[in-house]
Amino acid sequence: MDPGQHRAVCLVSGGMDSAVTLAEARAAGFETYALSFDYGQRMEIELEAARRVATGLGAREHRVVHLDLAALGGSALTEPPAGANKTSSLEVPKDRDVAAIGAGVPATYVPARNTVFLAVALGWAETLGARDLFIGVNAVDYSGYPDCRPAFLESFENLARFATAAGTERGESFHVHAPLMERTKADIVRRAAELGVDLGVTHTCYDPVHTPRGVLACGRCDACKLRLKGFAEVGETDPVPYQTTNTTP
Amino acid sequence: MDPGQHRAVCLVSGGMDSAVTLAEARAAGFETYALSFDYGQRMEIELEAARRVATGLGAREHRVVHLDLAALGGSALTEPPAGANKTSSLEVPKDRDVAAIGAGVPATYVPARNTVFLAVALGWAETLGARDLFIGVNAVDYSGYPDCRPAFLESFENLARFATAAGTERGESFHVHAPLMERTKADIVRRAAELGVDLGVTHTCYDPVHTPRGVLACGRCDACKLRLKGFAEVGETDPVPYQTTNTTP
Repeated sequence: MDPGQHRAVCLVSGGMDSAVTLAEARAAGFETYALSFDYGQRMEIELEAARRVATGLGAREHRVVHLDLAALGGSALTEPPAGANKTSSLEVPKDRDVAAIGAGVPATYVPARNTVFLAVALGWAETLGARDLFIGVNAVDYSGYPDCRPAFLESFENLARFATAAGTERGESFHVHAPLMERTKADIVRRAAELGVDLGVTHTCYDPVHTPRGVLACGRCDACKLRLKGFAEVGETDPVPYQTTNTTP
Repeated sequence: MDPGQHRAVCLVSGGMDSAVTLAEARAAGFETYALSFDYGQRMEIELEAARRVATGLGAREHRVVHLDLAALGGSALTEPPAGANKTSSLEVPKDRDVAAIGAGVPATYVPARNTVFLAVALGWAETLGARDLFIGVNAVDYSGYPDCRPAFLESFENLARFATAAGTERGESFHVHAPLMERTKADIVRRAAELGVDLGVTHTCYDPVHTPRGVLACGRCDACKLRLKGFAEVGETDPVPYQTTNTTP
C-alpha cells in the first residue's frame, strides 16, 4: 500500500453496478478489499463473476462470506427455482415493462439484504482499519428495493458510529459511498468504458439459463431489462450472451 | 398463535442473558422465533445450549444461520484456539478483575457482531411480519462491547425504518427490546428464577474445557467471572459445572 493510501471495503456482487463501483473506489485512490456473499443464491455463477471482477479490477483481497439467508425464506432469489424439489411460491418476475420496474417492492427483494451486507462490511472495515465502504446501489434505474436509497445509507452511517469501537472510543466516522446512486444505467455503461471495466465478465441476470453453449442471461427479468436498456441507450451491444434480448413486451 | 398475538424475533446465543431475554419476550405475550448464529465460534457447545434454551422456553421456531464471520478475522472468539495449527495472536483474556471488565474493548469483541445479528433478525422479522426484535445486551455488567448500548439500539431502530419494505412503504416501525439493558447480573439470576428459566442448560464461557466428565466452564474468562459474580451476589450456586470458580486473582 502506498503511504497514505486508505483502504476501502467494496461490496461486489459480480453485477455491472458493483464492478463499476469497485472501479470508482480504485479511481478515487483507495486500496480496495472486495467482499461478496454466498447467501443461498440460485446460481454459483454470481460468485464466479464476483471473483473475475475483483481480480480484474485489482482488489487487494477478495473474501466470500457464507451467509445462509435462504434459511429465513421470503425471496424469489433465495427460494429454490421452479422445477426443483419444492415448488416456489415466489417466482422471478419476467417481461415487466421497464417503466413499471421500481414501482413497489418485487418478489426478488431479500429482506434487509443490504443491511446485512453493510453490517458485515463494517465488521471487516473495522478489522482492516478502513473507514470507507462502497456499495453499488442505485436510486434511478433501480428495482424498487427500499435499501437502495440515500436515506438508508445515511441511517447506516449513523448506526456505524455507535456500532463500532472506532466510533464509540475514538469518535471516528464511517462513510458509505454509493457512487452510482444518481446514475442511470446508460451512465453506468459509459462510466465502465471510461474506467476500463470489462462488463463481459459481469453477471446481472436473476434467472440465467444453462445451455450447451454456456450460461445465457434470460433477457426478461427486471435486472436484465434494466441492463439492456442501459446498453440500448448508449447504442452499444452488451458483451454478455442472452437467451433473448427482445425487450418489447 | 392466539388471535392478536404478535411475533417477535429473539437472538439466542445460548448464554444466560439471551435465555432470560427470550423468557421476557414470552412473558410479554409474544410468540417467539429464536435466531442463533453459527459464526465460526470456537465451540459447537454454544449452539447446543441455544437449542436447549429455545426448546425449553417454548420458541415457535428456532433457526440457526451459518455466517462465516471467522473469514474476516479480528477476534479471539473466532480465531482458532491456541494449540491449534495456527498460533492465535488474540487470546481470550483470563483472570481479569471484574471491576476492570468493561474498561476498553476486549480481544473477544467481534467487529460489528450485534449489527450483523440484528440485521439478519430484521430480515427474518420482515418475512414473518414481526415488528419486534429482542436482544440480550446489557450495559451494566457488560464486557465493554460498543454494540451493547442504548444509543446503538436506537440507531438500529432508526435504520430499520429505512431498510425495510414495511418501514418505507407502510411507515411501520421496528422495536428493538433489550429488557436486560439496565439489569445487573444478580438481577438477571433472580429474574431467571422468577420466569422459570433453567440456567443449567445455558452456556456462557468463552473458553470451555473438555474433560472426561463433560464440558466445564473455565471460570476465568470475563464472561465466566461476570456470571459467577451474579450468582455470588444472589447467594446461589451456578448449576453449570466449572473447572474453577475461584474468582479472586
